[in-house]
Amino acid sequence: MSNDGVLRNLRRQHELRVLAILVERGPCSRRELENATGLSRTTMSAIVADLVRRRAVADDAQRPATGRGRPTTLVRLNPHAAAAVGVELGRGHVSVAVAGIARTVLAHVTEPIGMESGLSARMDAALSLLERVAAGRRLALEGLAAAGLGLWGHHPDPRAGGGDPAGDLVVTDLAERLGVTLGAPVTWDNNIRLAAVAERYTVETPACADLVYIALSHGVGSGVVINGTLVRGASGTAGEIGHVSVEPSGPPCWCGGRGCLEQYLSIDAVLGRVRAVAPDVADVAGLVAALDRGDRSVRDVVDWSAELLGRALGTVAILLDPHRVVIGGELADLGDHLLGPVRASLARQKLSIRDRRLELGTARISQGAAAVGAALVALDRHSPIHGIAGAPAEPPGTSGPRFM
Amino acid sequence: MSNDGVLRNLRRQHELRVLAILVERGPCSRRELENATGLSRTTMSAIVADLVRRRAVADDAQRPATGRGRPTTLVRLNPHAAAAVGVELGRGHVSVAVAGIARTVLAHVTEPIGMESGLSARMDAALSLLERVAAGRRLALEGLAAAGLGLWGHHPDPRAGGGDPAGDLVVTDLAERLGVTLGAPVTWDNNIRLAAVAERYTVETPACADLVYIALSHGVGSGVVINGTLVRGASGTAGEIGHVSVEPSGPPCWCGGRGCLEQYLSIDAVLGRVRAVAPDVADVAGLVAALDRGDRSVRDVVDWSAELLGRALGTVAILLDPHRVVIGGELADLGDHLLGPVRASLARQKLSIRDRRLELGTARISQGAAAVGAALVALDRHSPIHGIAGAPAEPPGTSGPRFM
Repeated sequence: MSNDGVLRNLRRQHELRVLAILVERGPCSRRELENATGLSRTTMSAIVADLVRRRAVADDAQRPATGRGRPTTLVRLNPHAAAAVGVELGRGHVSVAVAGIARTVLAHVTEPIGMESGLSARMDAALSLLERVAAGRRLALEGLAAAGLGLWGHHPDPRAGGGDPAGDLVVTDLAERLGVTLGAPVTWDNNIRLAAVAERYTVETPACADLVYIALSHGVGSGVVINGTLVRGASGTAGEIGHVSVEPSGPPCWCGGRGCLEQYLSIDAVLGRVRAVAPDVADVAGLVAALDRGDRSVRDVVDWSAELLGRALGTVAILLDPHRVVIGGELADLGDHLLGPVRASLARQKLSIRDRRLELGTARISQGAAAVGAALVALDRHSPIHGIAGAPAEPPGTSGPRFM
Repeated sequence: MSNDGVLRNLRRQHELRVLAILVERGPCSRRELENATGLSRTTMSAIVADLVRRRAVADDAQRPATGRGRPTTLVRLNPHAAAAVGVELGRGHVSVAVAGIARTVLAHVTEPIGMESGLSARMDAALSLLERVAAGRRLALEGLAAAGLGLWGHHPDPRAGGGDPAGDLVVTDLAERLGVTLGAPVTWDNNIRLAAVAERYTVETPACADLVYIALSHGVGSGVVINGTLVRGASGTAGEIGHVSVEPSGPPCWCGGRGCLEQYLSIDAVLGRVRAVAPDVADVAGLVAALDRGDRSVRDVVDWSAELLGRALGTVAILLDPHRVVIGGELADLGDHLLGPVRASLARQKLSIRDRRLELGTARISQGAAAVGAALVALDRHSPIHGIAGAPAEPPGTSGPRFM
């Protein structure tokens, strides 16, 4: 890195610490920021001026005077300042999200797109959607810290030697275009994984540190968040729960395995089995209707699928002990028709699972969750804030803190 | 936190940054440390003096003069300075390890202990062993940053509401005693998990970020490291691979499940099945001898166990895509007699597993690995160094770094 780069990097570190303190403590005086960071008055003055210029913070508030002193000017985060943009290119839709430095979602919109559109046309649609949303909500996008891109399939880093180089070149080009348009560094990942990150922020404060998101759609996949961090794996292929074998003596799967979860829990697999007993069920909505009517034979098919999903989740629970398992994808519309028998299956398994804090629910974000996740992952990477983004969970035991 | 505490905390943060820079760059001048940290000359001077006094660093080296200047005094890490102690209380042994700030292992010794000894007597034995080792190798223990304690069983944080409060009180007392004796904050965890951390540092530089360690002993358990961080789970029970069901229609397990891995891969389970065909096999050594002789019926029993272990590992590989799977515990002595058929089982499963970078091997540390892991985990918690300890793996795709 050039000397210039080193200095810019150092300045950026200082900026991040100032923003992190404002996120954690709320509005602060310059003096308080100096004390908390150990930075000099001159350096702090320059940093705050630059952040004000970029509208990331404002210094328009005052703390009333105490005694005979004068009121203190406070620096605060601009709640409308965009810090990251996320773009999801889905199969049937594009979605964009804008997030603030404190991980608030400032905007999130989704638009359908024809299956015939190529990736480049999808990016056109997403950027045009972003432009309209930013204009309509008066969001300032010029000071972005980062941008994230969500795609289907796995796109491991070609520099690490994994994946299909040709496919990755297409992704690199898309990321490059997004980065040049927005003037920010771009991080990309798989849509299901990014949806997992979005879901972890929807429920609790602080965000759930250990969460498994399972998409039951045309395929079956998952995103795993551990200690607040997305699990990608050594080859970038972590989370392929669809190919966990739930019936070792089951039929062969296209992947080479036998009795894979996807063979029982994809939309087509479930609808195929249902139609054998109820030929009039055309789609997921029809399936929900049949279950609502109390169709017993349809119920039995769904129960069997749920039993197998419960087996896979039992394994996940034993290995990873997540706090929360979230079911997404179109089959999440089955709601308690599916979750009920899954819970029963889990309860029949290892006793200690019942003592765990495992919560099972359906996704809170119905569509375009990966856009939100992409913005958040990009922020975690380029603007990490301790205690908010990706902070590791406390270890089980510690008698500290004490310092040497 | 008191104002005093805040200042001590800030000073500690500055110290850590100085040590981290010395670990990453090697010997540096005071001026270079000032530039790299942004700290003033006065602050740096006080920090270095204090670190020299505590023998954590030395300032006895010089960089030769260039041109007409004078030689520059360099600050360097003291390679013999202990930064953390790890203590493992095992069933049949106690072990202690001493690690330096750069994660080097300065000492590691193990001593057998009678099964009749209570936890408190085991701690006595460990502390006495530590005293002898420190005296014999002239290790300075007065400047410890942290200490770690490894135990069998799960000991989740009682403050989080999990686990057995009575059992945890015993652990809290042991940790308290270790902390008072060593004058350092204490972190504790399960021995198998800590062994996983030790193994990740034995192989590569930088340490393997995604590793699964499986102990095949009187029970079957595992430790999972993801993105360089130990997975503990929401209730502190992550890693119980022994109760993953590998035969859904198998016999009931004591845990409430069916066909659990432990029912096929514990020492007793394997020896029990072996004795049905070879009654003279008394123990693991006898089993290895029978396999070395090429006993076909014994071979078949081990092959079946390996097939089931391969199923469990296939699930692990699909979910987590680890870089390395390490087999530890007494049955690791089977070596390629076990690993060979496990690899064959993995190869028969999902095609894409074969494209992954999964490496399968036996543990490098045969006994007392948790002591090493305890010291390293304690350092990660109380003296984290970016790029060395628990640093997250690079995300799969990124077109940065650029800064706003």
